[in-house]
Amino acid sequence: MALIVHKYGGTSMGSAERIRNVAKRVAKWARAGHQMVVVPSAMSGETNRLLGLAKELAPSRTSDAYHRELDMLAATGEQASSALLAIALQAEGMASVSYAGWQVPIRTDNSYTKARIESIEDTRVRADLDAGRVVIVTGFQGVDAEGNITTLGRGGSDTSAVAVAAALKASECLIYTDVDGVYTTDPRVVPEARRLHTISFEEMLEMASMGSKVLQIRSVEFAGKYKVPLRVLSSFTAWDIDIKEEAKSGTLITFEEDEHMEQAIVSGIAFNRDEAKISVLGVPDTPGIAYQILGAVADANIDVDVIIQNVSKDGKTDFSFTVNRGDYARAIEILKERVIPKLGAHEVTGDAKICKVSIVGIGMRSHVGIASKMFRCLSEEGINIQMISTSEIKTSVVIDEKYMELAVRALHKAFDLEQVPA
Amino acid sequence: MALIVHKYGGTSMGSAERIRNVAKRVAKWARAGHQMVVVPSAMSGETNRLLGLAKELAPSRTSDAYHRELDMLAATGEQASSALLAIALQAEGMASVSYAGWQVPIRTDNSYTKARIESIEDTRVRADLDAGRVVIVTGFQGVDAEGNITTLGRGGSDTSAVAVAAALKASECLIYTDVDGVYTTDPRVVPEARRLHTISFEEMLEMASMGSKVLQIRSVEFAGKYKVPLRVLSSFTAWDIDIKEEAKSGTLITFEEDEHMEQAIVSGIAFNRDEAKISVLGVPDTPGIAYQILGAVADANIDVDVIIQNVSKDGKTDFSFTVNRGDYARAIEILKERVIPKLGAHEVTGDAKICKVSIVGIGMRSHVGIASKMFRCLSEEGINIQMISTSEIKTSVVIDEKYMELAVRALHKAFDLEQVPA
Repeated sequence: MALIVHKYGGTSMGSAERIRNVAKRVAKWARAGHQMVVVPSAMSGETNRLLGLAKELAPSRTSDAYHRELDMLAATGEQASSALLAIALQAEGMASVSYAGWQVPIRTDNSYTKARIESIEDTRVRADLDAGRVVIVTGFQGVDAEGNITTLGRGGSDTSAVAVAAALKASECLIYTDVDGVYTTDPRVVPEARRLHTISFEEMLEMASMGSKVLQIRSVEFAGKYKVPLRVLSSFTAWDIDIKEEAKSGTLITFEEDEHMEQAIVSGIAFNRDEAKISVLGVPDTPGIAYQILGAVADANIDVDVIIQNVSKDGKTDFSFTVNRGDYARAIEILKERVIPKLGAHEVTGDAKICKVSIVGIGMRSHVGIASKMFRCLSEEGINIQMISTSEIKTSVVIDEKYMELAVRALHKAFDLEQVPA
Repeated sequence: MALIVHKYGGTSMGSAERIRNVAKRVAKWARAGHQMVVVPSAMSGETNRLLGLAKELAPSRTSDAYHRELDMLAATGEQASSALLAIALQAEGMASVSYAGWQVPIRTDNSYTKARIESIEDTRVRADLDAGRVVIVTGFQGVDAEGNITTLGRGGSDTSAVAVAAALKASECLIYTDVDGVYTTDPRVVPEARRLHTISFEEMLEMASMGSKVLQIRSVEFAGKYKVPLRVLSSFTAWDIDIKEEAKSGTLITFEEDEHMEQAIVSGIAFNRDEAKISVLGVPDTPGIAYQILGAVADANIDVDVIIQNVSKDGKTDFSFTVNRGDYARAIEILKERVIPKLGAHEVTGDAKICKVSIVGIGMRSHVGIASKMFRCLSEEGINIQMISTSEIKTSVVIDEKYMELAVRALHKAFDLEQVPA
């Protein structure tokens, strides 16, 4: 008998019929002798419906008081789906109880709309499990020290599930989603893309951060920190498939290097067209420059991804970085209004029509020449590289958006990703 | 400067546009110098939508565990509408914060789906009011001693509003609804029905319990117990009508006899066609009979309204009572299975096609002959009376359902209710 956490996305919870299927699947696992905790997302469309109403009422608010209310509002979606799942399980003959984040409680900081989990109390959930109940815990939300409801940001239910699994020392956390695992790259771009049976935690982190959107990145960080075995698998299989087969399906995210059975140097190609590039030209090359530029941007709560500073010439340097495309106009405005006048920099330029393509692989640590192979492949396709950024297990390039699919396909082929590694 | 509680029904909260109008109205009251607490219902249709999903998943469950989940589910409707109203108020430039029942907290017993309020903590709300914020408190819900969400039953938001007003010692509790006050009877049945400017608490209790549906009966009981001045008024007036005019509109429910300015003997005609009549015939006339019959019915959570036991003949008596029509079949079944065999009663008969018509008036206390005037009026219309029940300020008759409108119209005329009393 193991303690297992299941997480179901909004599509899996999208109607009474689908909730009933989730209940049947969970009941199957419980009847196989497992202690079951389930973390559901809101029914698909529900969060957007609620936030749409808020936007209709207050098109452009940003205050803390406003964000507090957004969290009160959005948290209802998961509370409703959790209660419905508990009801569906009861109808299947399984004792079941649902808890909102504040009831567990899942304690967070007070950063409304993007709170971070600080601790999870396991007493109440454990008592229910020991009493033979399936426990449903609302995803996406928690409670701060003053008793205000907080939410964890989009996709936060993944993080909730992993955090609950960590707190309960669960044997495995299964993330049921609308894809059947993690692929070498997006199969819509490269039809030959192959599902990985395992991927290392660090690789998954790089893939997730590039917008592969299979898992919220913070859930992967959490899983890494607490060594929660995490499996991504499809919620579209029949609920009554053989449980042993189901337990091996999808992609397992591993934490031990020796579990990493596939010895590929590069595991996957990630890409992201949601970014924009900004350059501040002719910046005086003095200490504290990076902070002066990025501090103003960070103060406006704009995330910065790739950052590049070239060597200086005549005491001046060029400073470039990428931001989410949605923040592009605001970042440019902040720089022009607050940074340029103080710095005496020449000018701010930018380009919203770029994309980022990355090769990701834990094998890169011990293999040289991987980056240059990437650059040669792109060069052979006539693709100009605008920015380069590297980490131990990733090499990213920023290129013109129009070359994205071409670059991804060429790299997938160059690194033989359609082949199962020997 | 007064502390005022507003309560808005689901229709008033039915869309973003309507929520904005509520916010403008509340902001007007706040700008006039009042400390404002607002209790909204869920957006119209929302509670039915949620409970419909539950019913789809579990058509016929009745366990405590199930009712607990129904409350988790239904409570989300008010949490969402409360957050939306806070957002709308912020957009109007008013500082505002919303609290779910458990955050106030509003403590209740643990009778899921029909919990009773035990206490309300006022510290948090008062601190916000003193800081100049409009406070939104979710209607309809509270939290039990174990931290489970409870709901107060249909229409429970009225009770929430009155209870909050009592806890805060508010100057007045204004119930905004889709009617503009309490009428001498339903204007759809009697076009000459007249709006009452004031009605006594006791009369209102009798009117509400008869299904006039203007206010949940428990809210009136609560208002009576804590002497909360309660006003029922229309939410369909323009939000910017003169506040002095608005403050005098609708119907005020009074608690002091000397406030009762309208000296009519009968204030209104109430009626209810949601009942059914059951008779147990040939019951041995021994002590404890009423309990043996009604105890079994009450154990099944069926409310009993009118109860009549005739004088006995040959040691046998007939025992009649009315129940909600929805409980009729189940009540008959319980009697046939559990009561008749034990009692040795002859038979159970019933009639679901009945209605109850009542005349209500505090003036009846000091005037004789009111009941007989009622019976004469019905007799002149050829309406047979099946059951009679009286209280200090009410006389009710059970008659054939088909005569309901005729009886109401005749009585309204007989007691001169279309005339403003001298």
